Amino acid sequence: MRSPLISGSSRLRRTPYSKRVEEAGVKSYTVYNHMLLATAFDSLEEDCKHLKKAVQVWDVSVQRQVEITGSDSLRLLQMTTPRDLNRMTDDQCYYIPMVDEKGFMINDPVAVKLKEDRYWISIADSDMLFYFKGLASGMKLDVEIFEPDVNILSIQGPKSVELIKRMFGDKIAETKFFKHKKVNIFDKEMIIARSGWSHQSCFEIYVEGSKYGEALWDKLFKVGKDLDVRAGCPNLIERIESGLLSFGNDITPEHTPFEAGLGKFLSSGINPECLAYENLKKNDSPKRIIKPIKIEGSPIEPITYWVEILDENNEFSGYISSAAWSSEFNTNVAIGMVNRKYWNIGSKLKIILSDESTRNITVEENFWS
Amino acid sequence: MRSPLISGSSRLRRTPYSKRVEEAGVKSYTVYNHMLLATAFDSLEEDCKHLKKAVQVWDVSVQRQVEITGSDSLRLLQMTTPRDLNRMTDDQCYYIPMVDEKGFMINDPVAVKLKEDRYWISIADSDMLFYFKGLASGMKLDVEIFEPDVNILSIQGPKSVELIKRMFGDKIAETKFFKHKKVNIFDKEMIIARSGWSHQSCFEIYVEGSKYGEALWDKLFKVGKDLDVRAGCPNLIERIESGLLSFGNDITPEHTPFEAGLGKFLSSGINPECLAYENLKKNDSPKRIIKPIKIEGSPIEPITYWVEILDENNEFSGYISSAAWSSEFNTNVAIGMVNRKYWNIGSKLKIILSDESTRNITVEENFWS
Repeated sequence: MRSPLISGSSRLRRTPYSKRVEEAGVKSYTVYNHMLLATAFDSLEEDCKHLKKAVQVWDVSVQRQVEITGSDSLRLLQMTTPRDLNRMTDDQCYYIPMVDEKGFMINDPVAVKLKEDRYWISIADSDMLFYFKGLASGMKLDVEIFEPDVNILSIQGPKSVELIKRMFGDKIAETKFFKHKKVNIFDKEMIIARSGWSHQSCFEIYVEGSKYGEALWDKLFKVGKDLDVRAGCPNLIERIESGLLSFGNDITPEHTPFEAGLGKFLSSGINPECLAYENLKKNDSPKRIIKPIKIEGSPIEPITYWVEILDENNEFSGYISSAAWSSEFNTNVAIGMVNRKYWNIGSKLKIILSDESTRNITVEENFWS
Repeated sequence: MRSPLISGSSRLRRTPYSKRVEEAGVKSYTVYNHMLLATAFDSLEEDCKHLKKAVQVWDVSVQRQVEITGSDSLRLLQMTTPRDLNRMTDDQCYYIPMVDEKGFMINDPVAVKLKEDRYWISIADSDMLFYFKGLASGMKLDVEIFEPDVNILSIQGPKSVELIKRMFGDKIAETKFFKHKKVNIFDKEMIIARSGWSHQSCFEIYVEGSKYGEALWDKLFKVGKDLDVRAGCPNLIERIESGLLSFGNDITPEHTPFEAGLGKFLSSGINPECLAYENLKKNDSPKRIIKPIKIEGSPIEPITYWVEILDENNEFSGYISSAAWSSEFNTNVAIGMVNRKYWNIGSKLKIILSDESTRNITVEENFWS
């Protein structure tokens, strides 16, 4: 598919780091939460290789925050997700499937608990601010809901630990997965979490205040110079290898959390305060599910659109939503939604690529990394 | 500002007409409601000239519909807008400023009444589906809310009347402004409205069913061939000349309807069912307001980002949000938000362009067309 130009518009917001991202030679953008997100600096392949061996700074400001404060904060949150947040501690992050009343996925954010009655919801690409506002207004809840001036920089790659150590010290670099700690950046207290959208070592700095953006970016590049620090962005190849789902691509509002393979987050049961509790209870046995899929044969062009999966009788059996060639695993790696009949490991199916060639595919047990 | 490439992604949805739009040579895209929208086919200037003399077919599928049905439909709608919809007839469209509980703009859609208790809300660029869903769930309203498979084709330009006449007959071509009628398209009843995002003659066909998209597109081009029908898109120059505001550019959630200059839609008072009734009553006297602004001097490059307006003492006095050179009116035309001190007609102020040159500007009485 050809890649046309993207027009300038205030509606497609720039970030506090956009100038630096462009100076670093961004090749292409996407739009996410009404904001610009880089998708490549070199080639996808080269970006991926560098990500796996050095350290990258990602401008992921597009992970907009919804701040929820007030005595009904937890109650509001619990209405929107089947996950039980009651045991969440003040230094924890939770991945929370968000669902509407019917139990369909409307977002898959990370919830960050800052203190009792104060949360940041780091959202995927849909305006959850308005869903929270609608619910809170409708129920007259005691909450304030707004988008704070927070623009995340993600530090990614095996040398991210060393860079964070140099910037903030050993204790911060030792933060446990999906925990967060407080750091001082230019004399302002900010949050840093051990999290990020890759399976490399990674951290996310919740940079509070656009005005600190460029100075922090510059400091990270100065301090990390000998670590071969580069500007980066979420990488299609690496995130498929790792099985990281993209809301809007792999998961949509047509899917339940169980179809999205998120049942593992609900092993202790569905939180009964979730508005979709009854509907999810009824539908916890999906007819299709997200699976890792291997596409046989030579390297394919990246797939970023839906491709139907067919069985030997050419019957529709699901679709592939994301795929790319992985040079590390020497195969084409894919994420797809496979119908129940074929979701067992080892199922052999096929797809027809845009050049009309047929490829055999296999349902795998695990993602690659 | 340079225009980088836009990456392919299912998350940035293609429309039923995207193939035709690309065959017609689209030069650049924007993203609007998670969907692709063309922004230029030739130059902005040439697109504008053709729009004013012939007929264009615009793929404005991005005006996604939120369908609201059920006995509480009107009640739900009235909570979200200060406009009174009680006297709306079954064949009418209303432009409705949408506000949150505090009275700030969250969208500015066109509401289409289809029958008692059934509406389509043709939204600007924010996920109002979720705001309606949140409110309805919170208040346990008797409504169904969903996005129907409706993808609008807009027929634009002085010869649109002739094209609509040929396609659907005299009666349809005589539809009054912001009224709609039913037409049969490929044996399916659909809605056509006398509306659209330009000040040229225009119609919007609410094409119900993606499968009809390409066939209808092709028929319009066949029937309109001798009228010089071309693929087009909302045109920055023409919409500034006409004073058509863009939500996200000229109006944002920082603004009230009064600041957005939409007080004229509220001349009969604020509907008391609107959740923001009290807040809007208190704030009906704005401190700044949207104004037509003339930028003196030679043709400028289009402005699609915010530029501060300064007074003679270099004090911040507002900002320009959209501007372009108008060859028809032989001046640079702009839309801006001007502080009260300077909002009188004829006020002389200045801006500094990205090339650091200073331009004098004048607050005008009326938009140009």
